[in-house]
Amino acid sequence: MLTKTWSLSRDRCFAPDPIQRQIAHKFFDNISSLPIVCPHGHVDPALLADPAARFGSPTELLIIPDHYIFRMLYSRGISLESLGIPTTDGSPVETDHRKIWQLFADHFYLFRGTPSGLWLREELTNVFGVDEPLNSRNAGYIYDYLAEKLALPEFSPRALFKRFHIEVLCTTDAASDRLEHHQSLHQEGWTQIRPTFRPDAVVNLDTPGWRENLAKLESSVGREISTYATFIQVLEERRAYFKKMGATATDHSAATPYTAQLSDQEAEAIFTRALAGKLNSFDAQQFTGHMFVEMARMSAEDGLVMQMHCGVTRNHNPAIFERFGSDKGADIPLQLEWTQNLRPLLSAYGNHKNFHLILFGMDESTYSRELAPLAGHYPAVLLGPPWWFHDSVNGMERYFDRVMETAGLYNTAGFNDDTRAFVSIPARHTVWRRVACNWLAGLVVRGLVEEEEGFEMAQALVYDLAKSAYKLD
Amino acid sequence: MLTKTWSLSRDRCFAPDPIQRQIAHKFFDNISSLPIVCPHGHVDPALLADPAARFGSPTELLIIPDHYIFRMLYSRGISLESLGIPTTDGSPVETDHRKIWQLFADHFYLFRGTPSGLWLREELTNVFGVDEPLNSRNAGYIYDYLAEKLALPEFSPRALFKRFHIEVLCTTDAASDRLEHHQSLHQEGWTQIRPTFRPDAVVNLDTPGWRENLAKLESSVGREISTYATFIQVLEERRAYFKKMGATATDHSAATPYTAQLSDQEAEAIFTRALAGKLNSFDAQQFTGHMFVEMARMSAEDGLVMQMHCGVTRNHNPAIFERFGSDKGADIPLQLEWTQNLRPLLSAYGNHKNFHLILFGMDESTYSRELAPLAGHYPAVLLGPPWWFHDSVNGMERYFDRVMETAGLYNTAGFNDDTRAFVSIPARHTVWRRVACNWLAGLVVRGLVEEEEGFEMAQALVYDLAKSAYKLD
Amino acid sequence: MLTKTWSLSRDRCFAPDPIQRQIAHKFFDNISSLPIVCPHGHVDPALLADPAARFGSPTELLIIPDHYIFRMLYSRGISLESLGIPTTDGSPVETDHRKIWQLFADHFYLFRGTPSGLWLREELTNVFGVDEPLNSRNAGYIYDYLAEKLALPEFSPRALFKRFHIEVLCTTDAASDRLEHHQSLHQEGWTQIRPTFRPDAVVNLDTPGWRENLAKLESSVGREISTYATFIQVLEERRAYFKKMGATATDHSAATPYTAQLSDQEAEAIFTRALAGKLNSFDAQQFTGHMFVEMARMSAEDGLVMQMHCGVTRNHNPAIFERFGSDKGADIPLQLEWTQNLRPLLSAYGNHKNFHLILFGMDESTYSRELAPLAGHYPAVLLGPPWWFHDSVNGMERYFDRVMETAGLYNTAGFNDDTRAFVSIPARHTVWRRVACNWLAGLVVRGLVEEEEGFEMAQALVYDLAKSAYKLD
Repeated sequence: MLTKTWSLSRDRCFAPDPIQRQIAHKFFDNISSLPIVCPHGHVDPALLADPAARFGSPTELLIIPDHYIFRMLYSRGISLESLGIPTTDGSPVETDHRKIWQLFADHFYLFRGTPSGLWLREELTNVFGVDEPLNSRNAGYIYDYLAEKLALPEFSPRALFKRFHIEVLCTTDAASDRLEHHQSLHQEGWTQIRPTFRPDAVVNLDTPGWRENLAKLESSVGREISTYATFIQVLEERRAYFKKMGATATDHSAATPYTAQLSDQEAEAIFTRALAGKLNSFDAQQFTGHMFVEMARMSAEDGLVMQMHCGVTRNHNPAIFERFGSDKGADIPLQLEWTQNLRPLLSAYGNHKNFHLILFGMDESTYSRELAPLAGHYPAVLLGPPWWFHDSVNGMERYFDRVMETAGLYNTAGFNDDTRAFVSIPARHTVWRRVACNWLAGLVVRGLVEEEEGFEMAQALVYDLAKSAYKLD
Repeated sequence: MLTKTWSLSRDRCFAPDPIQRQIAHKFFDNISSLPIVCPHGHVDPALLADPAARFGSPTELLIIPDHYIFRMLYSRGISLESLGIPTTDGSPVETDHRKIWQLFADHFYLFRGTPSGLWLREELTNVFGVDEPLNSRNAGYIYDYLAEKLALPEFSPRALFKRFHIEVLCTTDAASDRLEHHQSLHQEGWTQIRPTFRPDAVVNLDTPGWRENLAKLESSVGREISTYATFIQVLEERRAYFKKMGATATDHSAATPYTAQLSDQEAEAIFTRALAGKLNSFDAQQFTGHMFVEMARMSAEDGLVMQMHCGVTRNHNPAIFERFGSDKGADIPLQLEWTQNLRPLLSAYGNHKNFHLILFGMDESTYSRELAPLAGHYPAVLLGPPWWFHDSVNGMERYFDRVMETAGLYNTAGFNDDTRAFVSIPARHTVWRRVACNWLAGLVVRGLVEEEEGFEMAQALVYDLAKSAYKLD
Repeated sequence: MLTKTWSLSRDRCFAPDPIQRQIAHKFFDNISSLPIVCPHGHVDPALLADPAARFGSPTELLIIPDHYIFRMLYSRGISLESLGIPTTDGSPVETDHRKIWQLFADHFYLFRGTPSGLWLREELTNVFGVDEPLNSRNAGYIYDYLAEKLALPEFSPRALFKRFHIEVLCTTDAASDRLEHHQSLHQEGWTQIRPTFRPDAVVNLDTPGWRENLAKLESSVGREISTYATFIQVLEERRAYFKKMGATATDHSAATPYTAQLSDQEAEAIFTRALAGKLNSFDAQQFTGHMFVEMARMSAEDGLVMQMHCGVTRNHNPAIFERFGSDKGADIPLQLEWTQNLRPLLSAYGNHKNFHLILFGMDESTYSRELAPLAGHYPAVLLGPPWWFHDSVNGMERYFDRVMETAGLYNTAGFNDDTRAFVSIPARHTVWRRVACNWLAGLVVRGLVEEEEGFEMAQALVYDLAKSAYKLD
C-alpha cells in the first residue's frame, strides 16, 4: 500500500511533450487566478442561504449525496444500504458514517483513472489538506481529520464559496419554486447566486406525479390551471418572476430532442386529456416537443437563455428506483438525433439573435456529425461543454477534437460543472482549465494557432464564453 | 493585436515529438513536389476555358462564394446581406466589397483552429504573399494589395493552375450539361480538365424542379423522355458522351445510401407517376434506391467510377433557403447506415473487379463500424477521404485512425479537395499531405511499419491511390 | 524491396515520448512473463487432443483458415479459389500451397498498418525465427523453411501450447457437442482446456438448419424435444454437463441485443410453430430475445458466466456465401442499441452478484454512451475487450480512452484473443499487453495515476481481470 505523501502533479492533465507542456503552463498560469463562473449546476441554495449551515460528516459530504461515487461501489457488489443511501420506504440503512467511510476507503482503488478519482484527490488535498493517499489503514484517521475540519467556520459553505473565488453560481429550480432562499440571499446582497427556471416536472406530462407538480405550480401563483392557455400564461409569469430574482436561463430535459409545433387547439386537447388522466404516450411526446418550441418562443421574447439536456433513460434499474428513488447512478444515455428533431424549433427561432439555445447530450457521435454543424450555422445555437460522464479528461479532449474545427470556439458555451457536490467545484473547473490549456498548447506546437491567439482562446474557454453564452456579463 | 510577420510553421500539422517530426519531414520532403491530383471537385470549368478569365475582387474570390466562410460569420450574428450574398428575389445586398472585406477581417478570429482559418492563412501567404496577419487595422491595405495581384495575368485561373502544378482536375456536371467548356478546353489541348457525370437532378424524382431538369436532359439529347426505358437509354448515352469528353467517374448524392432493385415494371410505374405529377415520397425513395443499383450496373459495364456522397439534410434552415437559395452553409449531416442499405447494390455488383464504388459520408461512427469492413471485403468498394466538415486536421487523423487498420491503406481512394474555391486547392492538399506524413511517421516511431514502407505509403496516399481509384492512370 | 534483417522494435506500440516510453517498459517488463489466459476463443480442441496432430503446410496454417488474411486479398481482386479456399460444392480450387504462399507474399504489402500485418510479423519472427521480411523474392525460401519447422515435434500444437505459456484455453462448442476431445484431454490431465457452451444454433430459431441442429441436440441427450419445456430442460442438462467438463462460461450471439421476457405460454407457442415449420421472423426475434433472458436466469442459477456478442450481419455477400459458406470475411458490423434492448434482461438479473454478463459489440459509439455507463452501474455487467476488427492498436486505444473513465477498470474483463488461429495467440496478447502498458504510462506521465497504481492496473489488465471475470480463479 502507498504511504508516501499525496500530492498533485503540477503537470497533471498535460501531454508529455516538453514544449507543449511549457506552453500549456504559460496559458494555465495566465488564467488560473480568474474567478470561477458556474452558469449551470445543482447546488442547493439552502446551503448558502443559511450562514450557519455546515456540510455534516465526511460521509454526508462526499459519499451519500454523490451518485458518481456510490454507483461505482454498487457496480462492484457493495450494497447501497451499506453505504447509507436512504430508502424510499424508510427501511433502515447503515448509519455509522465512520464505517461507511472505511468501506469507501477499502475500495478507493476502484476510482483509478476516473474523473471522480481525480476530483476526490484534488478535493482532499487542496480543499482539506489531506497529505497521504486514502487507504484502508488510514481511513479512520482521515475521517476524523475531515470531520474536525468540517466543523470549523472556515469550512462552512459560505466560507468555501469565497475561498473558491466563485463569481456567480446558478442553481436549478422547479417552475413552482418560490425561491425563498434566493430571495433571502439577494436581500443579504448575495446576488451572485441565481436561480434557473426548470419546468420539466410540469411540462413533460408523463412525469411521475405530474398532477401534484401542477398543483404546486397552481399554488405558487395562487390560481387554478384548468386550461392550456392558463398553463402557458402561468409559465410566462413564473419566468418573469425567476428573471426578477436574477435568473438568466432556463433548463429543459427530455429523452429525445424531438420538437414539434402544435396548434393551440391540439395543445389544448392534449392538456385537457392530461388533466382528465387520459393521456397516452404519443400525446406526452407531442406535448413535450411542442413545449420545447413554446419555451424557445418565450426565450426569444424574454431573453432567458434556453438549455436542452437530452438523451438519458432515467431510472434504468427498477429495483434501485423502487427501493432508493431517482438519481441513484442508474441513468443510462441513449443515441441522439438532433438534425431532424430540432428542425421545427430552429426553423421558428434559430435565426433570432437574442435567442441563445445551449445543447447538451451524451452521444458523442453527434459532436462532429450534428452539433458542431448546427452551432456553426444557426445564430441561436451554442454547444454546452461535455456533460455528465464526459466531464472528464478524455471526454473534454474528445469534445475539443470533434467540435471546435466545425463549430468554431466562439459558438461554444465555455464550461459548467453541473454539480450538486459543492466542494468539487474547483476540482472540476481545474480539470477543464488544464485540459483546455493543454489542447491549445497542442494547437500552438502544431503550428495551427499562434501563441498570442492561444492566450485569448484560453481566457475565452475558462471565463468569457460562459459569461456571454449565459448573458452573465 | 498581432503585427508581427505572418509565416507558416514548417512543422505545421506535425506531432511535437522530435523523432516523429523528423520522420514526417523526410516523408513530406519526398512527396511535396508531386503534382496535385483533383479527381473530385466543384471548380467551374468556365474559369479555365476562357484564357482572359479573372477572379474578380478579393471578396468575390474568398468570401461571397465560400459557404465555409460566411456560415461561420452568420452563426455569430452577421447577416448574409451585409456579406454581399445575393438574394433569390434580387433584393439588394451590400455591394461595397472593400466594406465586406473589413467586416470579414474584423471577425477573422472566429476562424481560429478551423480548417478555413488554416487554408486562408496558407492562401494569403503562399499564393498571394501577404506577410502580416489579417486584422481590423490592415484590412483595407490587404484588400488593395490582393486586388492589385488579382488583376495581374500571373493570378489568372490558368496561370494559377500551372503554378499549382495540378496534373488533373475533375469538375462535377449535370447529366444534361453539354460540356461546352470541356469541349473547348480539349480542343485547346487542356485534356487534364475532365467532367464528372452527376445525374442527381433527374434521378432523384423529388428534387425541386425535377420536371425542368428532365426537360434540360431531353433538350441535351434532342428527344422526349416519356418512358422509364427511354430515360435509362438517355442516361446511358449521356454517360458515353461524358466518357468521350474525358470523364472517368460519376457522382451521386442522397440523404441515405438506401439501395433497392426494382423490376422494370415497378420502375416504369413510378417514373410514369412522376411524369404525371403524382409521385409520393415512398416512390421517390424507392426510385433513388433503384437508380443507385442501375448506376452501378452501368458503371460495371462502361467502367466509369461511381461515387456516393450520402447523409446530409440540405437546406436545413428554411428562412435562409427562401431568401438565399441552396449551398448557403445550412446543410447539416445525418446518421448513416451503410451495412443494410448497400446490401442490394453490393450483392449485385460488389464483386465486379472493374467496378469502383467510392463511398463518402459525414457520420464518422460508420468509419470503423461499417465503411472499413465493407472496403476490406468487397473488391468494388473503396473509401473516399474525409468529406466536407471532416476535411480538417482532426478529421483526417480520425479517418486514418479508424479506417486504415480494417480497410487497409490500399482500399482507400487517396485525397480529393471537393472544392469550388480554386485558390484553396494547394492549401487543402498540403494539409492532407502533412497529416498523412505525420500519421505515417507515427506508425514508424511506434514500430508498426518500417520507414521504407512509410515512403511508399506516403506516395500512395498523396498521389497513386487517387489516380488508380479514379482510373486516371 | 526490403532485404534487411527483420526484427521487432522493442518499443513497438509505445508512444514516442521518452518518459512515457520508459514507464511503459517498466510496466511491460513486470507483466511480460505472466502466463497467457484465453477465456474466449475458437481453437479446435482436436488440435490439442491428439498428441500427434500437426498444423500442415504454412498455407494451411496461416492463409486458408484465416478470414482476416484472405478477406484483405479478396478485397484487392484476388479470387478465393486462387487462395485455396474450399468451395461448398467441392468444385476445384488451387491446391498448390507453395503457389498460394507466393501469391500471398506478392501482396504482403496490403497488410501494412493492419493488425494482421502486426501479428504475422510477430508470428513469423518470434514463433518461427524468420529473419527477413516476407516478399516476392524470398517467398519460396520462407515457405520451405516454415514447412520444415512445422514438421518438427517442437512445432506441434501441444509443444507450442507449452512454449506459449498458456495457463488456460477456453474453446467454443455447440450445445449439442459431446465434448469428446475435452473428455480425453481431461483424462490426460489437460484440464486447462475448457469448453464454452454456445447454444445459438438451437436457440436462434431462424438459424439455417435449425431443425437439424435440434436433432443433434436431441441425439446428445438421447430423447425427443417436442415441447418448449423439454427444450429448456435439455439446455439446463447440457449446461450442467459442460460445467462438469470444466466450462465456466456460455456464449451467445445475435444481430441485436434485444431482450424480452415472454410467458411460458408465448414461448411454448413460438417453439411449437418452429417445430411445425411455421415460424415468422417476428417469432424468431422474440424467441431469441426471450432466450437471452432465460440464459441469464440459468447463469444466475448455475453460475456460468454469460457472454453476448452482438451486432454483425453475417454473410453479407451472397455470392461468397453460396460458393464458400460462412466465416469468409464477409461479416459486416451494424449499429447497436444496448440501453433499451438490455433493460428487460438487466431488470430481471442485473443486480445478481453471482451473475456475470460480459458484453461485446463492434459499434464503438456505444463504448462511452451505453456500455461504460451500464458496466459502471449494474453489478452483473462487465465489458469485454475490443472485439474482432477492433482487436488492434488503435481499437484498443479507443477502448481504453472511451470506456475506462466511466466504467472503471475493474468493471472490464481483461483480454481475450477470440481466435481460431492458434499460433497467433502470443502475438495478439502481446499487442494488448503493450498497448495497455502504454496507456497506463500515459496516465502516469499526465499525473492521473501514480506509478505504483500503474503496476497493479497492468497486472489486472493482462491477467487478473480475465480470470476473475470468467471465474477461472
